[in-house]
Amino acid sequence: MFLPRLTDCAIIILTSIAITRSEDQSEYDPCCSFPCQNFGICNRIGFTQRYHCDCYGTGFYGDNCETATWRKWIYETLRPSPFTVQYLTTHFKLFWKVVNNVSFLHEWVMRVILKIRVTTPPWPEAHNTAADYTTFHGYHNKSYYSLTLPAVPKNCPTPMGVAGPAKLPDIEELVEKVFRRTQFKPCPRGTAFITPTYGQHFTHQGFKTVMSDRRTTWGTQTVDLSHVYGKTESDERALRLLKGGKMKMQIINGEEYPPHEDHCPGIKMNYPPIVRKEFRFALGHPFFAMLPALLYWSTFWLREHNRVADIMAEEHPHWDDERIFQTTKLIILGETMKVTVETYVQHVSGMHLQLTYQPELLHDSSHPWSSNRIHVEFNTIYHWHSMVPDYLHIGDKNYTLNETYFNMKPLLDHGMKTFTESASNQLAGRGAGGRNMAPALLNVARDALRWNRQVRLQSFNRYRQYARMSPYKSFEELTGESKLARVLSDLYGGDIDAVELYVGMLVEQRYRSKMFGITLIEVIASYSLRSVYANAIGSPQYWRESTFGGEVGFDIVKSATMEGIACRVIKGCPKLRFQIPEKITEARDRMQYDDIDDGAGTSSPQRDEL
Amino acid sequence: MFLPRLTDCAIIILTSIAITRSEDQSEYDPCCSFPCQNFGICNRIGFTQRYHCDCYGTGFYGDNCETATWRKWIYETLRPSPFTVQYLTTHFKLFWKVVNNVSFLHEWVMRVILKIRVTTPPWPEAHNTAADYTTFHGYHNKSYYSLTLPAVPKNCPTPMGVAGPAKLPDIEELVEKVFRRTQFKPCPRGTAFITPTYGQHFTHQGFKTVMSDRRTTWGTQTVDLSHVYGKTESDERALRLLKGGKMKMQIINGEEYPPHEDHCPGIKMNYPPIVRKEFRFALGHPFFAMLPALLYWSTFWLREHNRVADIMAEEHPHWDDERIFQTTKLIILGETMKVTVETYVQHVSGMHLQLTYQPELLHDSSHPWSSNRIHVEFNTIYHWHSMVPDYLHIGDKNYTLNETYFNMKPLLDHGMKTFTESASNQLAGRGAGGRNMAPALLNVARDALRWNRQVRLQSFNRYRQYARMSPYKSFEELTGESKLARVLSDLYGGDIDAVELYVGMLVEQRYRSKMFGITLIEVIASYSLRSVYANAIGSPQYWRESTFGGEVGFDIVKSATMEGIACRVIKGCPKLRFQIPEKITEARDRMQYDDIDDGAGTSSPQRDEL
Repeated sequence: MFLPRLTDCAIIILTSIAITRSEDQSEYDPCCSFPCQNFGICNRIGFTQRYHCDCYGTGFYGDNCETATWRKWIYETLRPSPFTVQYLTTHFKLFWKVVNNVSFLHEWVMRVILKIRVTTPPWPEAHNTAADYTTFHGYHNKSYYSLTLPAVPKNCPTPMGVAGPAKLPDIEELVEKVFRRTQFKPCPRGTAFITPTYGQHFTHQGFKTVMSDRRTTWGTQTVDLSHVYGKTESDERALRLLKGGKMKMQIINGEEYPPHEDHCPGIKMNYPPIVRKEFRFALGHPFFAMLPALLYWSTFWLREHNRVADIMAEEHPHWDDERIFQTTKLIILGETMKVTVETYVQHVSGMHLQLTYQPELLHDSSHPWSSNRIHVEFNTIYHWHSMVPDYLHIGDKNYTLNETYFNMKPLLDHGMKTFTESASNQLAGRGAGGRNMAPALLNVARDALRWNRQVRLQSFNRYRQYARMSPYKSFEELTGESKLARVLSDLYGGDIDAVELYVGMLVEQRYRSKMFGITLIEVIASYSLRSVYANAIGSPQYWRESTFGGEVGFDIVKSATMEGIACRVIKGCPKLRFQIPEKITEARDRMQYDDIDDGAGTSSPQRDEL
Repeated sequence: MFLPRLTDCAIIILTSIAITRSEDQSEYDPCCSFPCQNFGICNRIGFTQRYHCDCYGTGFYGDNCETATWRKWIYETLRPSPFTVQYLTTHFKLFWKVVNNVSFLHEWVMRVILKIRVTTPPWPEAHNTAADYTTFHGYHNKSYYSLTLPAVPKNCPTPMGVAGPAKLPDIEELVEKVFRRTQFKPCPRGTAFITPTYGQHFTHQGFKTVMSDRRTTWGTQTVDLSHVYGKTESDERALRLLKGGKMKMQIINGEEYPPHEDHCPGIKMNYPPIVRKEFRFALGHPFFAMLPALLYWSTFWLREHNRVADIMAEEHPHWDDERIFQTTKLIILGETMKVTVETYVQHVSGMHLQLTYQPELLHDSSHPWSSNRIHVEFNTIYHWHSMVPDYLHIGDKNYTLNETYFNMKPLLDHGMKTFTESASNQLAGRGAGGRNMAPALLNVARDALRWNRQVRLQSFNRYRQYARMSPYKSFEELTGESKLARVLSDLYGGDIDAVELYVGMLVEQRYRSKMFGITLIEVIASYSLRSVYANAIGSPQYWRESTFGGEVGFDIVKSATMEGIACRVIKGCPKLRFQIPEKITEARDRMQYDDIDDGAGTSSPQRDEL
């Protein structure tokens, strides 16, 4: 069933007005009103109210890039809309079961999906945080974040260009009214709490904003496993055992955990004074010392590393420590890619199509290997803190969020097995729909908003258009209800086009069998698949058995599953799962905005028996 | 006229011998003999004499990657050999004249050439100087040089694996007998001396070996104009005027030159004490202070920068210094690409086909934008020091090479116009055939040889095979004569397979209307076209008018010619030319090796009237 999308295809044929004059607004840049259609690049001409649209590469032409070329018109007419794709891949379970099991069919579908996803947004990216216009230096200096859309011009009538109020809503008020959780709302898809912790640990290898200059990142903008092995080669050396290709570990309660700070001189962890000496672990990323779930994933990968290193050492008795280590690291990188796509991204996507990490599917085509760059927008919309419950229920104990900060006891007291099982059986919060962020995490929302305003991100509706969907016309349409819609409308002066990216993405109504709204899902899919599928490890030169220490190592990579690794590295083979089928309630789920007059800040302990 | 290449197509169907046992050589790695055909990757199995060939991506299979797949066989059978391509593009002048003037034909040919060149060697590169096997760290850490072929395994019977003598020839002896010039041999193609100076200035933005660890580079491995603008942003700021988007300059003898060191605090130039204070220029690259020709090219680009900045400032009165500067820099980058391909690479290629820099030809295809990495082999075979004459003849004066080191008087005393004309009218030395390197430059050859041995480059004949040509069978076949052949044979123990890359490339007999032998030309073409054509500036996101400050700026880029820039930035509009037609002697040129008994070191002044 194919639904051609004639109504919403982006061909806007306007009587072109190249020169907009507006006597009473002669002060500001005419580009503030985004006069160039279809994301043509707008440039002001001198101090005048004239502008020029650079339509190159948009598939449109005309003074305002308003007329589609025939080629573009045919392409857009034939290309299914995001709605069609989402509809098709989240329905027809039986059909997809067949596709998943007929390898040539499945490979064909995967190839099509990847070719589209991985080349959107186009690369190399021209927009970044170095400047509002194209510079070589912004491209060249990889410490700048990319931007999917260029910043709103400076000195516009309003922060969103010309839409909305002259001043964006007060962040405090916004956070209180839109984000603060009054009552825990569980994820209707039965997403387990372990899922967002996986996302957190995986994404933080790349989301590394320099706090003194938030346009920049201190990471490498790629999946580099720096959260496990450290940022620099000298950090890596400090964390390595330098024997048998292994990583340093320590035994606590009879189990292996990451090493103590004292045994890894040179590793800077920045523990606050309250952290007791015995809990000062040395980890690849200082932030990972903050939460037991992050220590959990560090432990998970370090144990897997050492397990694989033993296999490599046995397989290659003539290899030295260095070669065993380097090859094992490549195997861990391959495994990471595989389980991230096949378990984590699969769950987030909510598709019946089984996503696979098979980079060989792209080996016969030109593909942007090794071209990843992190976009501010990607980092922003990955702020899924609404999914964090108010309490962590580990074993038989409840820990408030505040109790878990810099406190590893929830993991160490119960052990890896109990932690796995508990986190796999506790429901995460509902991501979409707003008003579900634990008070302890509200600072994250404040911070994201401040950051987005600093770099002058365009409005949510502009990104929605970028993702080939019509802009929302009303707040009700955005949220799918009326109470939150009213609150937002008040905050944004009644102008839906002024809603900020972060706010829009996280309040948008949840879309069929997804954890979030369709805009977030559409936009994030490209960023995530690019970050995984453009990694050099999948390229024809790397994705071959000699890279992974021969057939044995390559098999470890190709057969890796999240559950399998958990079972092998955690005593007792606990069942790690990202979804709790018996807790799926989405058939019943209707997005509800808590009465904002309820009084803020009173959050009730999560009911485990929900 | 199409010459199918059936005889030399690389399909070697051997009775496969997967397991080589050799009782008396049980000590060393069986991979020393390169048993894997067609550049499959060889890995030793344990401490045994067994090995495994990873044939993935080679198009061959079998225990030793010896059998071609049907697809590969058809492809290789249809694909013209390097000889055919070189023959076709250097003959049939009239035919190419037509092609050059029929744009759709010309574009088709350029597209085909680029698609083949720019994807060879395949990227991302798996081999580099970080380790002898694939590592993530070697890929990830861009300070390591790439390697086209992996290093010769350690502890082999001979430095070339199993070929040749147990010890490579003494470097001193090699340099004396093979490289030292006894008599200046002019370039038979009439190449002007200004040509190698252009090559030198252009390549040194990328060839930046860290002398304390020669596996690494302190450059960015891309065309980044760091030789003009400095390595870091702070260097760039120190060199900028910070007014009107311009670069600092100073007036000497009524002409503009790069600024004095004193006016650019922070720029480290490392002048030796002998350099007089007034000659201490601040340049983007410390090395550029060493030779007047490098100062010439710095001046050339800085003047062009300031000329363009003025145009941008006039075109965009509302732009600040920063934006004028950044956009002008992009224009200069675009111009550099254009003139490098269309004048410099064109001349080196010796083709009748007019090479063009038109990245838009690749905009409808997936292309490895922004994926350049410098190979040790590229840097090595670009050591064209044989082209440097013994004397620089500027105006009415002869300067010995030693007189030009750190001495800018040859440029400043005569001025830019005279320098341009003199360097455009003095013949460069012949690159190919050996025995033509000025004594003052022999250290460069010594150094290249030491470096290549340090990183254990494979032999010249292996690279020849990599470039799809049969390995040479004799020294006579390599040099095209007998005297030098005998010398080389003595040095390399009579084994042609032991000849080092650098030596083989530079002694190979000159190929029809080229400056060098066919192997060098074949191999270097891919590296150079990749470095230029993979640069982000040509990508669809950058190669558009808004990047270059609108139509005016884009036109400057698209209409740039070497002669045009010289005429605009140098008073008197001197004629800059890379070839001196009246001095072409190649019809008469027969490679001659000087009698090595002549006695070394006596070089006679170059005859200008040659």
